[in-house]
Amino acid sequence: MNWQTEITAAYQRVAPHVLRTPVLEVDGFGLGYPVSFKLEQVQHTGSFKARGAFNTLLSLDVPKSGLVAASGGNHGAAVAYAAQKLGHRAKIFVPELAGPAKIGLIERCGADLEVVGGVYANALTAAQAYEAETGAMQVHAYDANPTVAGQGTVALEWEEQDLDADTILIAVGGGGLIGGAMAWLGKRRKIVAVEPALAPTLNAALAAGAPTQVDVSGVAANALGAGKIGQICFDLAQETQVESVLVPDDAILTAQAALWKETRQLVEPAGATALSALMCGAYEPAPDEKVAVLLCGSNLSEDPFG
Amino acid sequence: MNWQTEITAAYQRVAPHVLRTPVLEVDGFGLGYPVSFKLEQVQHTGSFKARGAFNTLLSLDVPKSGLVAASGGNHGAAVAYAAQKLGHRAKIFVPELAGPAKIGLIERCGADLEVVGGVYANALTAAQAYEAETGAMQVHAYDANPTVAGQGTVALEWEEQDLDADTILIAVGGGGLIGGAMAWLGKRRKIVAVEPALAPTLNAALAAGAPTQVDVSGVAANALGAGKIGQICFDLAQETQVESVLVPDDAILTAQAALWKETRQLVEPAGATALSALMCGAYEPAPDEKVAVLLCGSNLSEDPFG
Repeated sequence: MNWQTEITAAYQRVAPHVLRTPVLEVDGFGLGYPVSFKLEQVQHTGSFKARGAFNTLLSLDVPKSGLVAASGGNHGAAVAYAAQKLGHRAKIFVPELAGPAKIGLIERCGADLEVVGGVYANALTAAQAYEAETGAMQVHAYDANPTVAGQGTVALEWEEQDLDADTILIAVGGGGLIGGAMAWLGKRRKIVAVEPALAPTLNAALAAGAPTQVDVSGVAANALGAGKIGQICFDLAQETQVESVLVPDDAILTAQAALWKETRQLVEPAGATALSALMCGAYEPAPDEKVAVLLCGSNLSEDPFG
Repeated sequence: MNWQTEITAAYQRVAPHVLRTPVLEVDGFGLGYPVSFKLEQVQHTGSFKARGAFNTLLSLDVPKSGLVAASGGNHGAAVAYAAQKLGHRAKIFVPELAGPAKIGLIERCGADLEVVGGVYANALTAAQAYEAETGAMQVHAYDANPTVAGQGTVALEWEEQDLDADTILIAVGGGGLIGGAMAWLGKRRKIVAVEPALAPTLNAALAAGAPTQVDVSGVAANALGAGKIGQICFDLAQETQVESVLVPDDAILTAQAALWKETRQLVEPAGATALSALMCGAYEPAPDEKVAVLLCGSNLSEDPFG
């Protein structure tokens, strides 16, 4: 897999369909040093997931039976949105945990939606059964090359915007976003993988030496609660020697409130998880280390405008 | 008054203290053409007002008795914030109309706050009495050269960020922000002044040939309800032949919801007023006209994080 080639090609495919998301530098949050943010949570359907969805739909042949995806909510909304824009049918399975705002967003994008009990893994099982039955194309939320290459376009775009950072902090669920960043950046910059202590999929996998099933719960579970890290991400994490840190839920909520107060960006808990590692000290940069934080999702459990 | 010199000097003064706010291009809102946004509502204390406040405090000698300001809320928060950062006392008068979130924000910035009945004009009268009594320095919300020069740094900064627009839409209250933009841009770009039909201060003044008192009400009144346009703004508006348009309150609220849905920017009604002119057709650009919209405030009546 030549990730440089794949991600460059992915960017050419998705650029006409996605927002070039802004960057913002802020010296605040009680840190005593500036942080560069990429506001990827403003992306269409409120998360980076639109990039992977468009790349998948534009690089593979979509059958007449359309697309199927399982999602904690954000991926499902992105696949539904991309399918609608490109004229495909989409069937989306989400767990109840996705919550009413994400479910409403997917419905507004015109997808055929099915809510299943429990967590993300249950939705994935249902999606796989639907794929076997109908021949619809499965768009995996994180563990597929076109998905990872699409998410990698965030890192490419950020470098085009003159990213000036030694270290980038990124929240991890199933590993699609950080996988794409590791695939693009390799060891050129340090990447810190931030996970809720209550959903430590990459952390547990690195400790065990292989992707391993973990229990997931907590405030960010519907976005970061994959339960098991993707193999693509795991391999890249070992190769690039990513640093893995865990943060408590209360630190995530503190960072979420601070992002509103100091930058007027309203993110979901998953979107504040990376910043929380700096604010709670789970990751402490060296005195001259320049840090950047990727904000990734803004689909709150309650949509401010219903 | 050499505005180019003044605004360039103002930018050197304020740049270390304010955020360089991001820009974002979006093809959406049912318009059929792209719009460039400047996200000035992410500025410290949630509006552009921090620029004028810092420029005033850094360019004039502040007496020991400190500062006094009257404000619908946003200017007061900005003066309180700048005073706290620079080590001055601040007394702020706001009308009840400012609402609890703006009042809470001013209190958190450490100012001595006084809430007066009625609308902005009453707060201004009280602030003038306090100035006469104590010798505190009045920081006018819009009709003072250092304020206008400070707000003009938004336009300077936007051009530094490669603004590519024939026409810029800007909401108008007392005229500080648009005054600064007109002072910087002159006739180099077309400026469209957008006001709520229920708070038409500039529109009425242009019709009357002089600043004139108007009744103000509606959803954006606590930010755009100055009641009478500033003389500085009025003179610049005549000189640059600004185009003045009015929008109904329901169009403002529609644009506010659309900004959340399509760009995940949560603005107050005043912050959505300029965009609403495009969405409701109050301003219709020519086929090849490139348009840009300045988002200016995000202090909602209810703060999402209290």
